[in-house]
Amino acid sequence: MTTTAALQTLTHSEPPTWTSTELARAFTAPKGFGDVTLRDRHPDAIELLGGIPDPSVLPSAELAEATARVLSVPGVPALQYGRTEGVPALREWIAAREGVPVSRILVTNGGFHGISLAVQLVVERGGLVAVDNPIFPLFLRGLELSDAKILPITVGRDGFDVAELEAHLVAGARPSAVYTVPDFHNPSQHSLTLEGRRELVRLAEQYNFILLADNPYRELGFRGEELDFEVFNSSSHVIHINTFTKTLGPGLRLGWLVLPERLVPDFVSLRARQDSHSSQLVEHAVAELLGSTPTFFDDTLATARTLYRQRADALSAALEAEAPGVFEIDAPEGGLFLWPRIADDSIDADKLADDATAEGISYQRGSFFPSGPGTDSDRRLRLSYGDTPIERLQEGAVRLGRAVATQR
Amino acid sequence: MTTTAALQTLTHSEPPTWTSTELARAFTAPKGFGDVTLRDRHPDAIELLGGIPDPSVLPSAELAEATARVLSVPGVPALQYGRTEGVPALREWIAAREGVPVSRILVTNGGFHGISLAVQLVVERGGLVAVDNPIFPLFLRGLELSDAKILPITVGRDGFDVAELEAHLVAGARPSAVYTVPDFHNPSQHSLTLEGRRELVRLAEQYNFILLADNPYRELGFRGEELDFEVFNSSSHVIHINTFTKTLGPGLRLGWLVLPERLVPDFVSLRARQDSHSSQLVEHAVAELLGSTPTFFDDTLATARTLYRQRADALSAALEAEAPGVFEIDAPEGGLFLWPRIADDSIDADKLADDATAEGISYQRGSFFPSGPGTDSDRRLRLSYGDTPIERLQEGAVRLGRAVATQR
Repeated sequence: MTTTAALQTLTHSEPPTWTSTELARAFTAPKGFGDVTLRDRHPDAIELLGGIPDPSVLPSAELAEATARVLSVPGVPALQYGRTEGVPALREWIAAREGVPVSRILVTNGGFHGISLAVQLVVERGGLVAVDNPIFPLFLRGLELSDAKILPITVGRDGFDVAELEAHLVAGARPSAVYTVPDFHNPSQHSLTLEGRRELVRLAEQYNFILLADNPYRELGFRGEELDFEVFNSSSHVIHINTFTKTLGPGLRLGWLVLPERLVPDFVSLRARQDSHSSQLVEHAVAELLGSTPTFFDDTLATARTLYRQRADALSAALEAEAPGVFEIDAPEGGLFLWPRIADDSIDADKLADDATAEGISYQRGSFFPSGPGTDSDRRLRLSYGDTPIERLQEGAVRLGRAVATQR
Repeated sequence: MTTTAALQTLTHSEPPTWTSTELARAFTAPKGFGDVTLRDRHPDAIELLGGIPDPSVLPSAELAEATARVLSVPGVPALQYGRTEGVPALREWIAAREGVPVSRILVTNGGFHGISLAVQLVVERGGLVAVDNPIFPLFLRGLELSDAKILPITVGRDGFDVAELEAHLVAGARPSAVYTVPDFHNPSQHSLTLEGRRELVRLAEQYNFILLADNPYRELGFRGEELDFEVFNSSSHVIHINTFTKTLGPGLRLGWLVLPERLVPDFVSLRARQDSHSSQLVEHAVAELLGSTPTFFDDTLATARTLYRQRADALSAALEAEAPGVFEIDAPEGGLFLWPRIADDSIDADKLADDATAEGISYQRGSFFPSGPGTDSDRRLRLSYGDTPIERLQEGAVRLGRAVATQR
């Protein structure tokens, strides 16, 4: 290239304004709700911010051993290409646990990935989706992939308000999908009743929408039996979204969908056009971990449930002790969150959050979580106790008590 | 629910016809080109089908050790949430090697994932993309995410025909992106010249398209220095798509993009709406593997290059010996493919492929690879020698010779 040509190139190459595709133009900037994937951590404060499992109940040593075993298999399939649907041994383990045929299991890179695939394949661009109110806020971010409109449905002590949804349906609303977290709801703690599950699935079949049942906390119940999921797995109108994130670790990026048979081809096709398949190393290692000791997963869950129950109870008790009468707290039954209501009307919720941060205790303010009007979320706090030891939770309650005291 | 209600539900729940979203309606069924993620393997035949690295040069033992080390770090960050952009230590290692700021590196789940993200963010739905002809066929599958139209550009002994593209541009074609594999092209072996690279980047800047430089084979050159990539990394109009697939193993699902700064926010936003981030376990383990011994990656590459060069040369020689004068073979200079031309006009290429399969030697027929008219691909074979030992390659040549003999 001559010097003259080079100069012309420089002239030509003045940076033009970049125009995003229609897809990207629907993306909004993160606001309010802290994004764990973007946030740097502050080790000096007590942070009750995210639904983060405790490292002590994640099976790191056993996973290292399982990884070493799969990496010593001749030909090392764990380092080679695999099937889009997932490693057969892992899918078989999951399918047996779900009580469905293997063909209905699609391995994903975690629960949020399953949400994302479903949003792209079930919700037409600009379509309508009925959603939890309050809601796991990142779902709304995922929904931007389809630039969808939302219909907020109240979530209360009995979970998703199915009657409220039905009233909208009877009045003519026609969502293509309905999104709820049925077990140990994020942020509002409670679970959808058995009758509510049945009714919601019945409505999905009657009005021909897809129910997105997002179930990351299902294995973390504190009191008695697992909540019903057979109702989700036996309908052609439900996508049951699951993950090992809260039980084996978010960093694996490993989850699964239980799909209606008719939806499987589109999901496999989309996945084959995105990242082909999940990490074979992770899939093989987890299949080895779960398959080599039949009781391993349930033993791991039992340990985790005890730890989280103790933490939830300790935090609940400490809040009562340090700020008596200030918070209305429902007894925690599972999951990783408390959702106390500020019962003292004289307390300003935003000032409390600011004062708490200054005292060295951070949480998500409830005002981050509504998907529409009509909730009492702005009078609430979401406290995540999963990865914080009891002593620190108690210290956090002391600090929160000091923050409360500035307004009393 | 009463029996009557249950019966009504059954009536209501007759499976309605499933309607795919607009996104999924653009997906075509796999045809012709074997899909390694869908195909079951036949261990009795010699299969030269896919660009598969040899297990003997993948660092499985070292990776097991690195994994054990990252899983023993207190707090086990390898099992926790991470940043969408990737683990800092891994991004820093990659950025240093690429000669770019860390902020321009986005970790992906392998090269195809990088292609997919780029297609979704650079190509408007129904847009135009100029592509290699012949082409890595799975790119066209990825392009279905944007339901794009294609403009085929000849790839010859000097790689992508930049003059042919320029003629289209001068005539008024306005692609939003141009896709090529610059180094050791799949399927056609050759590399884009240095002058061709410069011209192509100049055209990208002049005509404001994004060059998708897909570079999975860049580290697998046999003869001398690495081909120039600085020209790609120094333009605001190039996305340089890279992967550890061919060097550390496809099963990791780990790659990276070198992005122009202006494009980074959209890519992070899209990724945050899909699977949040790549497996932290894999990212931490690979960062540990590469970072703990500074010469490790280059040593691994040196071993791999020697192995693949020996295999390529042995296959090339065996074909000359077993079917003299039948094939025109260019000396392999890198990568994982031979692309011989059937020089004997009396030989029918499809019959040869069928006879070869019957003899126990499988390969991809060249007719799978054109993206448009004007190539001699249907007179060619794509032979992948990466994961087949020399003795088996020689036996494969014997079998191919027998298949040729049925037509002579």
